[in-house]
Amino acid sequence: MNTPLDFQSIIMSLQNYWAQQGCMIWQPYYTQVGAGTMNPATFLRVLGPEPWNVAYVEPSIRPDDGRYGENPNRMQQHYQFQVILKPDPGNPQELYLKSLEAIGIDPLQHDIRFVEDNWTSPALGAWGLGWEVWLDGQEITQFTYFQQAGGMVLEPNAVEITYGLERICMALQRVRSFRDIRWNEQRTYGDVNLQGEQEHSTYYFEIADVDNMRKQYDLFEAEAETALKNGLVLPAHDYVLKCSHTFNILDTRGAVGVTERQALFSRMRDLARRVAEAYVEKRREQGFPWLSGGQAQVVETAAEEAAPQSGPQTFLLEIGTEEIPAADLISAQQQLEELAPKLLADLRLSYDSLKVLTTPRRLAVVVEGLAERQPDQTVVVKGPPEARAFDAQGNPTPAAAGFARGKGLDVKDLEVREIDGGRYVAAVVHQAGRAAVDVLSETLPGMIAALKFEKTMRWNSSGVSFSRPIRWLLALFGANVVPFEYAGLRSGRVTRGLRFISPAEFSVQNAADYFARMQAQGIILDAQERRATIFEQVRKLMLQAGGDGEIEEALLDEVNQLVEAPTALLGEFEPEHLKLPPEVLISVMKKHQRYFPVKDQAGKLLPHFIVVRNGGDQHLDVVADGNAQVIRARFADAAFFIREDQSTTLEQLVPRLSTLTFQFKLGSMLDKTQRIEKLTGDLLRLMKIDGEAAPVAARAARLCKADLMSHMVVEMTSLQGTIGRHYALRDGESQAVADAILEHYLPRFAGDRTPASKAGLVVGLADRLDSLSGLFAAGLAPSGTKDPFAQRRAALGLVQNLIAWDMDFDLREGLALAAQNLPLEVKESSQKECLEFIVGRLRSFLIESDYRYDVVDAVLAAQQHNPAGVMRAVKALSAQVARADWNEVLPAYARCVRITRDKTEKFAIDAAAFSMDEEKQLYAALLAAEEKPRRAGSVEDFFTAFLPMIPAINTFFDKVLVMSEKESERANRLGLLQRIAALAAGVADFSLLEGF
Amino acid sequence: MNTPLDFQSIIMSLQNYWAQQGCMIWQPYYTQVGAGTMNPATFLRVLGPEPWNVAYVEPSIRPDDGRYGENPNRMQQHYQFQVILKPDPGNPQELYLKSLEAIGIDPLQHDIRFVEDNWTSPALGAWGLGWEVWLDGQEITQFTYFQQAGGMVLEPNAVEITYGLERICMALQRVRSFRDIRWNEQRTYGDVNLQGEQEHSTYYFEIADVDNMRKQYDLFEAEAETALKNGLVLPAHDYVLKCSHTFNILDTRGAVGVTERQALFSRMRDLARRVAEAYVEKRREQGFPWLSGGQAQVVETAAEEAAPQSGPQTFLLEIGTEEIPAADLISAQQQLEELAPKLLADLRLSYDSLKVLTTPRRLAVVVEGLAERQPDQTVVVKGPPEARAFDAQGNPTPAAAGFARGKGLDVKDLEVREIDGGRYVAAVVHQAGRAAVDVLSETLPGMIAALKFEKTMRWNSSGVSFSRPIRWLLALFGANVVPFEYAGLRSGRVTRGLRFISPAEFSVQNAADYFARMQAQGIILDAQERRATIFEQVRKLMLQAGGDGEIEEALLDEVNQLVEAPTALLGEFEPEHLKLPPEVLISVMKKHQRYFPVKDQAGKLLPHFIVVRNGGDQHLDVVADGNAQVIRARFADAAFFIREDQSTTLEQLVPRLSTLTFQFKLGSMLDKTQRIEKLTGDLLRLMKIDGEAAPVAARAARLCKADLMSHMVVEMTSLQGTIGRHYALRDGESQAVADAILEHYLPRFAGDRTPASKAGLVVGLADRLDSLSGLFAAGLAPSGTKDPFAQRRAALGLVQNLIAWDMDFDLREGLALAAQNLPLEVKESSQKECLEFIVGRLRSFLIESDYRYDVVDAVLAAQQHNPAGVMRAVKALSAQVARADWNEVLPAYARCVRITRDKTEKFAIDAAAFSMDEEKQLYAALLAAEEKPRRAGSVEDFFTAFLPMIPAINTFFDKVLVMSEKESERANRLGLLQRIAALAAGVADFSLLEGF
Repeated sequence: MNTPLDFQSIIMSLQNYWAQQGCMIWQPYYTQVGAGTMNPATFLRVLGPEPWNVAYVEPSIRPDDGRYGENPNRMQQHYQFQVILKPDPGNPQELYLKSLEAIGIDPLQHDIRFVEDNWTSPALGAWGLGWEVWLDGQEITQFTYFQQAGGMVLEPNAVEITYGLERICMALQRVRSFRDIRWNEQRTYGDVNLQGEQEHSTYYFEIADVDNMRKQYDLFEAEAETALKNGLVLPAHDYVLKCSHTFNILDTRGAVGVTERQALFSRMRDLARRVAEAYVEKRREQGFPWLSGGQAQVVETAAEEAAPQSGPQTFLLEIGTEEIPAADLISAQQQLEELAPKLLADLRLSYDSLKVLTTPRRLAVVVEGLAERQPDQTVVVKGPPEARAFDAQGNPTPAAAGFARGKGLDVKDLEVREIDGGRYVAAVVHQAGRAAVDVLSETLPGMIAALKFEKTMRWNSSGVSFSRPIRWLLALFGANVVPFEYAGLRSGRVTRGLRFISPAEFSVQNAADYFARMQAQGIILDAQERRATIFEQVRKLMLQAGGDGEIEEALLDEVNQLVEAPTALLGEFEPEHLKLPPEVLISVMKKHQRYFPVKDQAGKLLPHFIVVRNGGDQHLDVVADGNAQVIRARFADAAFFIREDQSTTLEQLVPRLSTLTFQFKLGSMLDKTQRIEKLTGDLLRLMKIDGEAAPVAARAARLCKADLMSHMVVEMTSLQGTIGRHYALRDGESQAVADAILEHYLPRFAGDRTPASKAGLVVGLADRLDSLSGLFAAGLAPSGTKDPFAQRRAALGLVQNLIAWDMDFDLREGLALAAQNLPLEVKESSQKECLEFIVGRLRSFLIESDYRYDVVDAVLAAQQHNPAGVMRAVKALSAQVARADWNEVLPAYARCVRITRDKTEKFAIDAAAFSMDEEKQLYAALLAAEEKPRRAGSVEDFFTAFLPMIPAINTFFDKVLVMSEKESERANRLGLLQRIAALAAGVADFSLLEGF
Repeated sequence: MNTPLDFQSIIMSLQNYWAQQGCMIWQPYYTQVGAGTMNPATFLRVLGPEPWNVAYVEPSIRPDDGRYGENPNRMQQHYQFQVILKPDPGNPQELYLKSLEAIGIDPLQHDIRFVEDNWTSPALGAWGLGWEVWLDGQEITQFTYFQQAGGMVLEPNAVEITYGLERICMALQRVRSFRDIRWNEQRTYGDVNLQGEQEHSTYYFEIADVDNMRKQYDLFEAEAETALKNGLVLPAHDYVLKCSHTFNILDTRGAVGVTERQALFSRMRDLARRVAEAYVEKRREQGFPWLSGGQAQVVETAAEEAAPQSGPQTFLLEIGTEEIPAADLISAQQQLEELAPKLLADLRLSYDSLKVLTTPRRLAVVVEGLAERQPDQTVVVKGPPEARAFDAQGNPTPAAAGFARGKGLDVKDLEVREIDGGRYVAAVVHQAGRAAVDVLSETLPGMIAALKFEKTMRWNSSGVSFSRPIRWLLALFGANVVPFEYAGLRSGRVTRGLRFISPAEFSVQNAADYFARMQAQGIILDAQERRATIFEQVRKLMLQAGGDGEIEEALLDEVNQLVEAPTALLGEFEPEHLKLPPEVLISVMKKHQRYFPVKDQAGKLLPHFIVVRNGGDQHLDVVADGNAQVIRARFADAAFFIREDQSTTLEQLVPRLSTLTFQFKLGSMLDKTQRIEKLTGDLLRLMKIDGEAAPVAARAARLCKADLMSHMVVEMTSLQGTIGRHYALRDGESQAVADAILEHYLPRFAGDRTPASKAGLVVGLADRLDSLSGLFAAGLAPSGTKDPFAQRRAALGLVQNLIAWDMDFDLREGLALAAQNLPLEVKESSQKECLEFIVGRLRSFLIESDYRYDVVDAVLAAQQHNPAGVMRAVKALSAQVARADWNEVLPAYARCVRITRDKTEKFAIDAAAFSMDEEKQLYAALLAAEEKPRRAGSVEDFFTAFLPMIPAINTFFDKVLVMSEKESERANRLGLLQRIAALAAGVADFSLLEGF
């Protein structure tokens, strides 16, 4: 192995490489920026229609990333290498990967992956889609297709490649800390930058004068305004950047509350937008001088002659893409599984089997035994009525002649047919079936275009949007290409295998050849098969490491969508990291790195992780080492935050919640905390909970949100509650309080556990009732896909918990109590709307739990306000409707209801007036039923009471004419039936059941 | 010729080159800096003992250099390439020159020179000595040996090399404007930076909000203080830089007065010093971790064996240096012309001839026929007196024995000699003469060390100071080396020729070989011979271009010290530049570029210039083109300033003088202007000047300093007055007023003309009297070499002008009038001191004009307050003392004076009491003389009156006893002689003449 390049040589090599690719080599900016994106060479030059290719180093300053030089790879200053390619050159990923080779990274020795990571900069009014590039698990580059900047849609788009130079260098030099990076032969990175890290960290976190910074911010903003007013784009931009840096310092000093943050962001975004617009306007005035007039590249490939072949063939379509995000991949698979069969049906092409295959870089449809041609068909087209088609002499009228001409027939070829009960002339057209290749050529573009994704992007001038850029199209029918064009590409027989395996592109003969070539490279095209392979590999390694072999499904699903040729490998980390809260370790491993944690049989974490790389089993040691290095740095970072948090108790953090806005109209998180405290008290009384749980709930209510102000949770939001629990124990709170703090968030996601303690239950209830009633009162009900406050989950969690605890609770009362504390007027309509929303979640929950919708609706109609009761009733009713004699039970009750339900009048019963025995017997049965003890809403109790009445009901209806002509008789009988119908009140509305 | 490198390739090539030389490649700084020096990689790393080698680009922001993109090479942002080598590697110039080759500059095709340019940064408390490097007249690099930074002496020193990348690139690509520099294949420099130049120029000159900037400055300063108080060096440094940039903006907006400037500078310097000290302290605490413990390099050369030779030889000493400034070179020549003969005399080494040879890179002494050895000598050393040396028996005493032993003699070898009139024992020691080589070896270091320069520098650890670094020592006696060590070097026979001619170093056999080799390279070692050569070359080209052939001596002297192998060449510029004031053109050519301007016979400038390059006549076209490009840019710059100045009249500039401090106690230049106006009026009355001159003088007095506020004069101070004159005419002032504005500065230097108009004379007088009386009153008399307000020149100009105009003027009255206007108390002692100072200048002027000192002193003693009178009297008296009968004239007068001068009593004459004829005749002669008409102070009139009295005087003394015993007689005679002596009152004090 050659000596790896030193830091400065990496930079010089990248400069040389990108200069050779036609990039201008630019310089770092002269004011502090958080990223190379803010350099006008990116922020402004990506705007407008002119081409621009540039590369430069950017020492990037992020005050809150300062770690006093103690974290292996997190610093307040890091060096970015920034590349902008505008327009998309068509192969930016390949250009990028070659640049890695130029700095000495042998891609065959490493696991290099493109992992979904989209980018938004609120301060710059910019966003884009793309990836993090991982080198053995380490994020070394951000790769983004810019879609918007300064609030302007980019046309053309620009590719932004941002290298993290320290991380690349650490991986290359295999050193453990930025301090040890060899900068050149004499000096390390630590030699020259450690003092800066220590001093600037101290400065940003402890020393910078907040008042001074606020004043600076205002001065910079004012100067940006002045510059803008005078049409000075670049000076204005400079001051926007200075605002941004000053804001970052304020933020690092913990001086910016949420409301202020939003206000400042909005002001910066506004300035950035005006700068961007002014820039484009200036360029427009100059006639966009760099527009060379060149047109979008057209990919030209020579059309090949079709080989002679006959009979059904295997059809293969492969949409070759840059790495598609996991969720999009799953969605694309589902869509293609619907679209492809539908397309073939529409085309009247028969086939033996159809399968959709997906990997991150390809969406494929393979159809075995696809008919070579459509069958011929005869189509009868209705013409004018016979009466109008022929005159008195039986000669065709001009109407008939015109119709025939329109169908390409002679008028004498028209036939008269009986259609829809009338007689019409008809054209009987014989259509010859067309070749599958021809009809597919015409329709495949439409099918691809029909694929929808939650977020799409443009990348070239074709105007096509997709999840990620499409880079090749393979379409073969047997051995022949199905020619079409889409997204600026022409279909062919060329595909690509695993990256870095030579040749990068190759032709395949046919589908069989394609599968053989893919298999040879270890690519598993079938997502299910791939998942199974990963499962086996991971499980084996897990057991080997002493683990329990339990694999989380969701993570497995995600990992499955990140690789095409999976190889699992076992890594390890220093056992001392196990001192950190296990939730933190797991969260880091799973969320950040998509590693599988390893637990022993007792559920205790082991110092291992399992990573699934993309590619074969060569150089696994290098890959494992790289991944271990990443996890080590991340753990160190978590340790840093926890250490930082040592100095403050949760109780001390509570007042700081005033700086965190919950919602504009509903105040800060401190306001919310105080409401939760109050409501928790109210609920404890309402629910008649006392004993130990009451003080625990009160204390937990006070502390439940405090960890939001901790460094650890600010950094990893998903650990809210978990960290609160840990810190509560650290602070000496009781175990019960600590647990309740965590539990008030439960369940956090589908399948999560519910609170184990009553205190946790009640505080969670208070939190959710406050949120839901408040947000609805503020006019912020979720709509469509918009649910920014996660109210769906809140509502669902609320009902799930009540159900799990089988705890009767009247939602109406709860919402009313919550409403009392709110800082705004609560209208009855909003409360009602809120209740309906919660009930809607309850209904979904029940239906998704496979209860019959009619059963669910029947119960909800009667007792929707009490979820636990609903649950019990639904279960019981489900059992009833399954009974063998249900078709006797339901009708008996139904007869009583049907005849009375349209009667608005309430008929009283005059027992003495019953004349017939059947009447008297039924009345006696009713009284007996009514005397049975009943639990509110209990389905069982209803049936226990009702079932014995059935014979009496049936006899009654057989013998007694309810609608007697004698009004008093009739009223008395209706009254009797009304009383029977009323037995189900508060239990279920049986009329909603099927078969009623 | 290959395609020249583009801009980015130049940068990348320099990075590669310096990386190969062991430099760390660093990045531009993240806050606006005026120069790479301010990057902590220079400002801090040059401090302390640790080694540091670094190279980086620095986009440098200098707001007041903004030219809206219109100047060819002056911009508010330019790109520096900065290199620091610490300690001095011993060959930094060579390393630098090789870097030029690395970027494609063929040194053989160009004129590359090191032109003295020292560097001081008041804001950084830093200074150093070095050069501008010129490429065909264009300054492309600043090369400095840092001596001090942050107020701390540097130990070791650091070499700073700062490339001006745009200028280098323009020269390489042969483009005329920065806008046309090819940055890479697609884009020009103008493409990417023109908009910035335009916008930032507008911003800095017109838009930046002064109040906002002042507030920013204060906030930055406060934050720097906070950081420093907390020991945070780098954050503090950042804020010092921000202060500096903000100050520059304020300055560009014209918002900083002189007093404020000084205050701000002092505050920034103080901060910079504290930052520097804190940095060094931190490094010290860490034990200066980069100190490798390596010691200073010792230059080792194998001693060579002496060749056999006998008899007198030619001795050659060559001190090889980096380019020595012209003034130092002249001084070194003079010093060596004294020191070398003195050394040889002290060493008793005879020789035939001795000559000192100097070029910018060498100081040489060549001695022909130097004796091979000192002559033997006998020395007699005095011992104890004979009486104490021998006892009664005549045996030597212990005293004698001890003395003999001390001289290495046997006691019997002592001799008795008569010395100083006594008898002593004496040791007669015979000393054999030592070899010249040996004694020179011992004494040459001392001779070099004895060379003194006004400013000296250190460069390596030898501790030696010199004008510029000494890089080699050649010392040959005949064919043998005279070995010695100095400044870390060992003498030898190796020398260096012209740069870039291979080999760079070579050995010479002996002096003859040396001269032959030098001559072969065109090096003219003899400064006089070189001057003559240049004169001839320049004159020839001048005539060829249609010029008058007149060559300014001072410029010739300077140019002569800038080259060793001169080749003059003719360049030209666009005639349109001739629209600029000729003084501006000339000033640019001479002062900035050391070009000879070309005037025609009528004194009109021609669009040509003559430059003297160093080296031969190859590629003169390239060199001429490069030089023309420089002059073009400089002319464009001047045109820019003049255009900027269009908008304001001189009258409008007057109030702005309030922002320019003359001197703290004496107020602003506006205050001074008002004093000049007042004093001009007073002087006009005193000197009885009326008619046209009076209103002209009054107007000129008002406007005379206004041009100090013009952009053109701020940029080129030497044009003060000249520009005032031009702008006055532009403003519609009369020609007389315009001329007077210029003339009030005359004479500006030795040999300059004096005012042609009375108005100019009077205003100049007023200006100088105000300055001199004011500064003396403020306690700021010049002392030693300290004369910051150029009072010597003011006093000299004052007397020169009065003399030139032959204008009687009583300095006492003038100073008294001036004193009335001053804003401080003026003591009589300071007025007296001031008068003495002016008279001192007058005396120097007269003596330097070759008048006899006794004549000058005689006249001054009588009428020093009136310079014009003094001049007349000195001339006349000089004529008198030259007369043949002077030895009769003077004694006659002297007899009258001598006998009376110690008499304090004034004797009255009683004419009736004269008894002797001789008395009566002399009295009659006196009365006749006294009746002659006399002009005040006139020497001629004195002699016209006095000469006829001589016979009477002589007879009187022959016959009459002055000191008669009879008191009345004696008093009457003394009274007569007193009256005769008094005839010279106000004319001269003849007692001061020689022979009196």
